[in-house]
Amino acid sequence: MPFHSHKLPNGLQIIGETSPSARSAALGFFVRTGARDETPEVSGVTHFLEHMVFKGTPRRTYLDVNRDFDKIGADYNAFTSEENTVFHAAVLPEYLPAAMDILADILRPSLREEDFDTEKNVIIEEIGMYEDQPGSCAYEHAKRLFFDGHRLGNSVLGTVQSITDLRRNQMYDYFTRRYVAPNITVAAAGRFDWPEFVKLTDKHCGDWLPGPVGRECLREEAGHGGFQVVVKDKVTQEHVILMAGGPPADSPLRHAADLLGMIVGDDSGSRLYWALVDPGLADSADCSFHEYEGTGTFYTSFSGEPERAEENLAITLGVLGAVRRDGVTEEELEQARSKMLSRVVRASERPKGRMIALGMHWTYQGGYRSVDDELKAYEAVTTKTIREVLERYPIDRVSTLALGPLAELHKG
Amino acid sequence: MPFHSHKLPNGLQIIGETSPSARSAALGFFVRTGARDETPEVSGVTHFLEHMVFKGTPRRTYLDVNRDFDKIGADYNAFTSEENTVFHAAVLPEYLPAAMDILADILRPSLREEDFDTEKNVIIEEIGMYEDQPGSCAYEHAKRLFFDGHRLGNSVLGTVQSITDLRRNQMYDYFTRRYVAPNITVAAAGRFDWPEFVKLTDKHCGDWLPGPVGRECLREEAGHGGFQVVVKDKVTQEHVILMAGGPPADSPLRHAADLLGMIVGDDSGSRLYWALVDPGLADSADCSFHEYEGTGTFYTSFSGEPERAEENLAITLGVLGAVRRDGVTEEELEQARSKMLSRVVRASERPKGRMIALGMHWTYQGGYRSVDDELKAYEAVTTKTIREVLERYPIDRVSTLALGPLAELHKG
Repeated sequence: MPFHSHKLPNGLQIIGETSPSARSAALGFFVRTGARDETPEVSGVTHFLEHMVFKGTPRRTYLDVNRDFDKIGADYNAFTSEENTVFHAAVLPEYLPAAMDILADILRPSLREEDFDTEKNVIIEEIGMYEDQPGSCAYEHAKRLFFDGHRLGNSVLGTVQSITDLRRNQMYDYFTRRYVAPNITVAAAGRFDWPEFVKLTDKHCGDWLPGPVGRECLREEAGHGGFQVVVKDKVTQEHVILMAGGPPADSPLRHAADLLGMIVGDDSGSRLYWALVDPGLADSADCSFHEYEGTGTFYTSFSGEPERAEENLAITLGVLGAVRRDGVTEEELEQARSKMLSRVVRASERPKGRMIALGMHWTYQGGYRSVDDELKAYEAVTTKTIREVLERYPIDRVSTLALGPLAELHKG
Repeated sequence: MPFHSHKLPNGLQIIGETSPSARSAALGFFVRTGARDETPEVSGVTHFLEHMVFKGTPRRTYLDVNRDFDKIGADYNAFTSEENTVFHAAVLPEYLPAAMDILADILRPSLREEDFDTEKNVIIEEIGMYEDQPGSCAYEHAKRLFFDGHRLGNSVLGTVQSITDLRRNQMYDYFTRRYVAPNITVAAAGRFDWPEFVKLTDKHCGDWLPGPVGRECLREEAGHGGFQVVVKDKVTQEHVILMAGGPPADSPLRHAADLLGMIVGDDSGSRLYWALVDPGLADSADCSFHEYEGTGTFYTSFSGEPERAEENLAITLGVLGAVRRDGVTEEELEQARSKMLSRVVRASERPKGRMIALGMHWTYQGGYRSVDDELKAYEAVTTKTIREVLERYPIDRVSTLALGPLAELHKG
């Protein structure tokens, strides 16, 4: 599967992995901007802007965007995170030019005042619905507690207040600054012709403006061991999140960190699974490694009946403490590796999965990694590498957040 | 992608589609048994049995099953429907023999009395959680109303009463009768060697007992136009379901019925989307075609604020009536076809998707259909074929069920 890359004169990066045995093609625009690039006055603007991108351009109304995607049977969507805004579509190969025509067009949106006002209400409703999801709500609180002033603690959705106060011109300024050509990577995977794809991208995006790109606040974050209880009477289960520092996205330790998270808290056959879920003490229990630019986290969580929360917290801290002290066994590592290799391979079997992996990898590392490279990196992890991760990033030095009916919870 | 099939002397059917470009393999056991094969006394036994299959064999405890799957990094699961119980695993090619070893073993479960008692409580909890999901709850009621005594109206989960009353011996009898070799199809897709796969299946399943297979109550069902309102005070939105008859799984009209459902109620760009969701009148609105052995249904639904339910019902009946009277336009058909072709192709790109499609198709039709055959069948549909569907299966002759806070709802 040959990889190709090309940079347009305006700084727009194009990458692609062609796979002649594929029967579809996937295309994505990776804008390196997210909640961490927002000042408090415009909290939530990145996510709101992602919505506005689908609301029309000088060439297309909102209805046209929807209909044009449907005409070509596209599986299309977008997402916003702390660091990225990604717009993507998967189509039959003959529709790749049409998908590019639509995606490139909507990425220069009109941001019409009346659409802005209408969509504002949709976003405010979305924030309201999010408030009703205790797991997501706890996650937002936990991030804020752990990152404590670091911009990675910013809320992706923003608040009802920040969205209500946001003006169209503030969004336009943000767009003009962050959606510049050098801040965007266009990625394709599946069945397509590379030279034609470069021409196509140049035709649609060659006139996009260049501009400076940057990101503030890239320091590594280890947390301050905070402990916070957020009372929500309406919620029936207690949701507890423990966050610790981890290696950043460009660290050579990231694959080891990934496997460590899996050993501790994968949803099947992990230490937390056997300690909390299998015996029925908690409804769910997870640990996973999250990587960011400049820093990373181990995110451990469980949920269940409030009266069991204290005991479960003690068990969880016991699991984290034991792994930090004694590391992991060869057998555990082998099992996690099998699961990971299987997941990487299966995710790569569809052009959409490959396109997302390519785009993300390029955004963070500025390079290419084949599926085999990725497998080799996981194969190279030893119990000793995992020890290194644990020494440098103590997984049990956590900031703890509980959300649910409990008024107080003891640290145990 | 060559297709192969072989029947063992005991009647077990083996099928497979090899794809040398794949990087994984998927394996599934399709047992042709479901809720429609249950008598009222054992309501829910099929689904309960699916759970018990993972609880151990003479060779493996429950923990062994879990650990053995994890060791090979398998993505494994099972599901039970009105007509099928399917157990499946996706693995890296080198682990296919190990996956077969586990799956074939667990399909001859011990059904130990103590595991039966423990799992009974899990199932009863699951029924309780299901009751909290108004959409699923409404679906069960709607099926019962539409099928009115036909066994396809049977509940998949059963009731708290039926599960409480169920004895281990009743499950054992059901297992002995329904899990006979001729009632099972083993399907594989992805990267594997066919002759070896046949040998492997024979080694593990060659001694499974044969036995008679059958299914009662295969008549086509058109519904009786019933109208029922189920009051649930705790639910905030009103959920309304309209069911009409449709072609059975082996009908030459099934592809046209599929496209018709998409035109009327796909989640983007369909008639119901534009009539109810886009203008914000309903939270969701869908129509889709469901096929069964001997019969089929068009399942139309919407949910939203209770005070809007009556108006939305009138709009929905208007949409269904108009399509029945005037058919669909060429443009609508083209757009739905593009979406469908794109979905079929994308679903086929992973061995797991192909394995499920192969197994299901063989279970219903006893034959093979390549991805290209499937695409051609959708391509052959014309607005005239859709007219035929509508004449034979009037999509607006519905049984209607509403579930939510409303005490009454007018037919409009």
